[in-house]
Amino acid sequence: MRATVMFGAGDVRIESIPDARIIEPTDAIVAVNRACICGSDLWPYKTMEHSDTGRRMGHEAIGVVEAVGADVRRFKAGDLVIMPFAYSDGTCAFCHEGLQTSCIHGGFFGIAGMDGAQAEAMRVPQADGTLFALPVGKDDALMPSLLTLSDVMGTGHHAAVCAKVGPGKTVAVVGDGAVGLCGVIAARRLGAEQIIILGRHADRIALAKEFGATDVVSERGDATVEGVHELTHGFGAHSVLECVGLEQSMLTAISITRPGGAVGRVGVPQGETMPASLAAFYHNVTVSGGPAPVRAYIEELLPDILEGRIEPGRVFDRVVRLDEVPDGYRAMDERESIKVMVEL
Amino acid sequence: MRATVMFGAGDVRIESIPDARIIEPTDAIVAVNRACICGSDLWPYKTMEHSDTGRRMGHEAIGVVEAVGADVRRFKAGDLVIMPFAYSDGTCAFCHEGLQTSCIHGGFFGIAGMDGAQAEAMRVPQADGTLFALPVGKDDALMPSLLTLSDVMGTGHHAAVCAKVGPGKTVAVVGDGAVGLCGVIAARRLGAEQIIILGRHADRIALAKEFGATDVVSERGDATVEGVHELTHGFGAHSVLECVGLEQSMLTAISITRPGGAVGRVGVPQGETMPASLAAFYHNVTVSGGPAPVRAYIEELLPDILEGRIEPGRVFDRVVRLDEVPDGYRAMDERESIKVMVEL
Repeated sequence: MRATVMFGAGDVRIESIPDARIIEPTDAIVAVNRACICGSDLWPYKTMEHSDTGRRMGHEAIGVVEAVGADVRRFKAGDLVIMPFAYSDGTCAFCHEGLQTSCIHGGFFGIAGMDGAQAEAMRVPQADGTLFALPVGKDDALMPSLLTLSDVMGTGHHAAVCAKVGPGKTVAVVGDGAVGLCGVIAARRLGAEQIIILGRHADRIALAKEFGATDVVSERGDATVEGVHELTHGFGAHSVLECVGLEQSMLTAISITRPGGAVGRVGVPQGETMPASLAAFYHNVTVSGGPAPVRAYIEELLPDILEGRIEPGRVFDRVVRLDEVPDGYRAMDERESIKVMVEL
Repeated sequence: MRATVMFGAGDVRIESIPDARIIEPTDAIVAVNRACICGSDLWPYKTMEHSDTGRRMGHEAIGVVEAVGADVRRFKAGDLVIMPFAYSDGTCAFCHEGLQTSCIHGGFFGIAGMDGAQAEAMRVPQADGTLFALPVGKDDALMPSLLTLSDVMGTGHHAAVCAKVGPGKTVAVVGDGAVGLCGVIAARRLGAEQIIILGRHADRIALAKEFGATDVVSERGDATVEGVHELTHGFGAHSVLECVGLEQSMLTAISITRPGGAVGRVGVPQGETMPASLAAFYHNVTVSGGPAPVRAYIEELLPDILEGRIEPGRVFDRVVRLDEVPDGYRAMDERESIKVMVEL
């Protein structure tokens, strides 16, 4: 079968590899219908050292179950499923608490020997806990929006939940990538009164406004902070969604949070320490967030997609075939594209 | 009048200074009956550069109102009051939200030209919003416990609230000083099932157990983390109260928090950046806290003191007169004393 393998920074190839196969009795094999390129895939695309064996890429998918292991009870061949970016057993203490990304038998796709979703097929461990059966057909027009439940919509929602967004709140979103844009959707869905998007790309800002952003701050550096303060009576935003992960973006996020407010961070931190710890302390700013338990959020978000209340699939502005995935990486890296969908 | 002035590290003196006087119409003058030496006073005691003018010290007091400015409505001469460590107008948006330490007309005692409480008297700005009238006489036996409402009991409670302590939760307390000990009281009061105190001083551990600690971890470094994990089925504590403020203590706090749990930090951070940001992220650990709005907590905690359910005044293990305050600093700095009360 064919799959996407990254061999180093800027070096993404479609390779012929052995077919995906059941290893554990709790596995399923999923034939991928649709996958994505993720903003987080761009970190290794920029920095990965050369590897002779390479790394399988992709962690977001909708596909059809091809085969299941002997212990899989909830799925059978032919089921159309969403595959969240993390696998989880669905039965441990953390899964019961809705934190599937800390499952004691769980892990992440596309790293450390796990299969990746930018491929014809893949092995999914802990299939019963991980997969979610879709109630629609595989050619449904809602497929792009449903695909976002595998990562970016659930991640934007997690940022909003961690930042304590609620009715009447002022929200700022740091980052105008696919996750930030889904954060705007999530903030509006949770009742935010004012939603400020921080960004500089005209196409993304336009989409953010259609998703519910009420204000835009496009200045850089200190002027960003001043811009948000001007829009919030000098106080800052109650809830700030940090959807980038850089030290500068985290510094900005804390600096624009109202005293007593919260930062929900979902951008994977690129540094070991957190900046502005002292500023956060003196203003009683809460910093929360991490890898989103998107599996937990599917039930909550799915009806809003099926009934047309939210359209997160609009973050996809390019569709590629598997052969074109390397060019998809290039397009996202060069900001030609917000988010790329892979159709198989 | 006489007041405590710090002129540099290790250099605390009782000086004769001009009497406290009304400056703003919202001021009150309070004759101090009881004050404290605070763990946070030990930071400048260790590190302050020499100053010819010095810095007034102390921010916790119970006293009697001597005089009020023309705009003070809620207090009159003769009232016995608690003075929290921060002053606040009681009317701004943040005061209404219960975050008096971010009051837009507020500030802190004992810094930047403000009067200090380790003195015969002091000027209290924003008297109507800041002070709290006590329903008992000034020689009441509960006075030590009531005095803790000016800082350490409210601060320990804030740590517990920020760490989301609740019924059935497992709690760990980093720091066995007066705030950590009050954190134990707060955790028990809020229904925690297991309370692990991290500390190595026999007298403090004994008091922590009397306050409700169920377990003790006395090892240093990595062994601290292992010790807490052994006591918590390998998961860590739901709620961790960080009551020190050092980089190492914050690192420990994050390392012993259960995935999805929360650190409530009230130890004033001694560094600009926060360690273990990446670890906190991957485990979805929330970091919250800051200067405690102790003014907001007095109403909630006072009945428990008046009715004898909690006895935070037991953290005072030494009482000094004003002349003996310099020796009180020495005793706390050398860990001879947990917390020193100053009687005038």
